[in-house]
Amino acid sequence: MKSVEAWMQKLGDRAPIGTFERMIEVCESQAADGGGKRIVLACAEDAKLIEAMELARERDIVSPILVGNSSGIEGAARSVSVNLDAYEVVDVPDYQAALKESVDMLVRNDADILMRGAVPAVDFLKAVLARRHELGIPGLLTQVSCLEIPDYHKMLLMSDAAVVIKPTLQQKKEIIINAISVANALGIALPKVALMAAVEVVNPAMEVTRENAIISKMGDRGQIRGALIDGPLSLDVAAFRSAAELKGVKGEVAGDADILIVNKIEEGNILYKSLIRFAHAQTGSVLVGSHKPMIITSRVEVQNNELHSIALASLLHTFYNRRPTEAA
Amino acid sequence: MKSVEAWMQKLGDRAPIGTFERMIEVCESQAADGGGKRIVLACAEDAKLIEAMELARERDIVSPILVGNSSGIEGAARSVSVNLDAYEVVDVPDYQAALKESVDMLVRNDADILMRGAVPAVDFLKAVLARRHELGIPGLLTQVSCLEIPDYHKMLLMSDAAVVIKPTLQQKKEIIINAISVANALGIALPKVALMAAVEVVNPAMEVTRENAIISKMGDRGQIRGALIDGPLSLDVAAFRSAAELKGVKGEVAGDADILIVNKIEEGNILYKSLIRFAHAQTGSVLVGSHKPMIITSRVEVQNNELHSIALASLLHTFYNRRPTEAA
Repeated sequence: MKSVEAWMQKLGDRAPIGTFERMIEVCESQAADGGGKRIVLACAEDAKLIEAMELARERDIVSPILVGNSSGIEGAARSVSVNLDAYEVVDVPDYQAALKESVDMLVRNDADILMRGAVPAVDFLKAVLARRHELGIPGLLTQVSCLEIPDYHKMLLMSDAAVVIKPTLQQKKEIIINAISVANALGIALPKVALMAAVEVVNPAMEVTRENAIISKMGDRGQIRGALIDGPLSLDVAAFRSAAELKGVKGEVAGDADILIVNKIEEGNILYKSLIRFAHAQTGSVLVGSHKPMIITSRVEVQNNELHSIALASLLHTFYNRRPTEAA
Repeated sequence: MKSVEAWMQKLGDRAPIGTFERMIEVCESQAADGGGKRIVLACAEDAKLIEAMELARERDIVSPILVGNSSGIEGAARSVSVNLDAYEVVDVPDYQAALKESVDMLVRNDADILMRGAVPAVDFLKAVLARRHELGIPGLLTQVSCLEIPDYHKMLLMSDAAVVIKPTLQQKKEIIINAISVANALGIALPKVALMAAVEVVNPAMEVTRENAIISKMGDRGQIRGALIDGPLSLDVAAFRSAAELKGVKGEVAGDADILIVNKIEEGNILYKSLIRFAHAQTGSVLVGSHKPMIITSRVEVQNNELHSIALASLLHTFYNRRPTEAA
C-alpha cells in the first residue's frame, strides 16, 4: 500500500487520472524521465495498428518493435504513410514463429509491453499462456477497460468484457484483483468496486445476486484487499447518487463506482458497446494478470482506442515497476 | 398479417412511429375517434403515478380509474396539485382487495389497461396470474421497453429487462413473439430481431451463441412468424451498418435492428440503464402477453417514462382490438 501511495504522489497533482489526454501526458513525462516503454507488436503486418503505434511514438510514449514478415510490415506502413526509420523491425516471416519470438522478447526482458497484431486472439493467448511461469501469470489474464464517458464524473473501469465467458467465484475474485491494480495505476488508492446485477436485493432465485453477496462478504473479510466492494448493484445505483438515494441503498460504493464488475461476457460486451456507440465514451483496454501488460484491441471502431490502450499499458507497466518509488 | 397491414395504413402516414411525441399524437387521434382507453391504477395512493395519469389525461389519451384507499389517493393527488374531479375513484381500503378489484375490472371489461400502483411487483404479478385464463395469458408476461435514443435512427425495442431472470429457449421464443406485437403496434410490419451476444460466431463453448443459433433457425423455419430474426449479434453489429460491414456480417438484421433480445435480466437491465443514464434515451415500457396491456414502471427516474408507458399500452390495446380494421 505504501508504494501505491508513493506512486500516487509521483503522479504529480495527487488527483486520479480523469481523462485519456491526461494519461498520455503522464506517460510522456514518465518517458522523459527515462521510463519510455519498449512495445512489441506481434505479427505487425497491420496498417491500423502501425498507425496507432506511430501516434504513440510521436507522443514519445513508446519505442515500437515490429515483429513479423518485414515486407508485409513495410507494405502496411507505406499504406498509412508511416516512416519506419525510428522502428525496430524484426523479420520473422512465419506467423507462429513471429508470435513466439514476440513473447520471447517479453520473457527475455527485451520488451515491456506486448500487443496483438495480425493474429487471432486465441492463438495470441495460447502463445502467452505457454510461457505462463516466465511471464508471471499466476491466475487469469483478464481484460480491463477504461472508459471516459462524457456524462460520468471520473474514469470508469469495467471488467471483464473480453476474455472470461462466465467467471466462477474464484475467477471473479481474480478479475477484481486485476482491475484494482489498473485503478491504482490511475491514482485511485482505494477503488470502489460495484458488482453488477439487475437489482440491489439479494434474491435467492437470482444466481447473480447470490454470487455478488458472496464476493461482497469476501471483500468485507479482507479476502480481496485494496478496494471497497459492494453488490448486487444495478448500473444506475452503482454510478449515480440520485439513484442510490431513491432506492435507499447505503454504503460507500453506491453512486460513486470506480470499477464495474460484470457477470458474463455478454453483459460486459453490451455495456461496453452501448457506452461507446450511444454515449460516445472514449476507451482504452489492457490485458492484466502478468508481470507485463498486454493489449488485444478488437476491431470495434473507437477513436484512438489503440493509442489509449498503449498509454494505459505503459502507465500500468510503470506502476508495476514502481519506478517512481525506486527513484525517490 | 392482413389486419397488421390495415393497421399500418390507419396509422396515417404509413411510416412507423419514431418518437414518443408522435406516439402520443397517434393515441390522441385514436381517442378522438372514440378509442379513448380506460386505465385502472391498482393501489393508486402514489403521487408520482397520479401525476403521470394527469399528464396522460390532459393529452386525452386515457380516462383514469383510481382504485385504493380513497383518502390516501386524495392526499397523494393534493400533494401534486391534481384535481380528481375528472377521475373515477373506487374506494377499496385494503390493498390486497384493491389489487383484486383492479384485476377484476379488466376481467369484466370495465377497463382496458392495468397499471401497477403502490404495490410490490411480485404481488401485482401474482394477482394478475391468478386470473390467467380470463385475462388471456397463454404463456409468459414479458416486459417490452421502447427506447428513443438520440443517436439511433428509429425506435429501438428491447426485451426482457424486467421479468424473466434467465429465459429457457421456449421462454425466449415467447419473449420474441410478445416483442413483435409491440413492433407491429408501432407500425413495423416485419421487425428485425437481433439476438444479443458478445460475438457473431457460433462458439460451441459459449451457451448464448448456441441458443441464439437455435432461435435464429426457428425463425428461418417459420416457427416464429412475422419477423426477421438473426443472432448471435453483438450490439454494435446489430445496430450499426458500419460495424456489420467491418465484421463482414451479412443478412437483413445486422446494422438495422428494431428489436434487441437479451439473454438474461442482468444484460437487459445494464443495457437499459446505460441507454437511459449515459445516452439519454427516452423510454416507455409495457407488460405484454395478455389480452390487455399492463404497466409496471419501476422507480428508475426517466423523464416522462410513465406517460410514455401509458401511451404505448394504449397504442397496443388499439392494435390488439384492430379497431381501425373493424371501422374500415
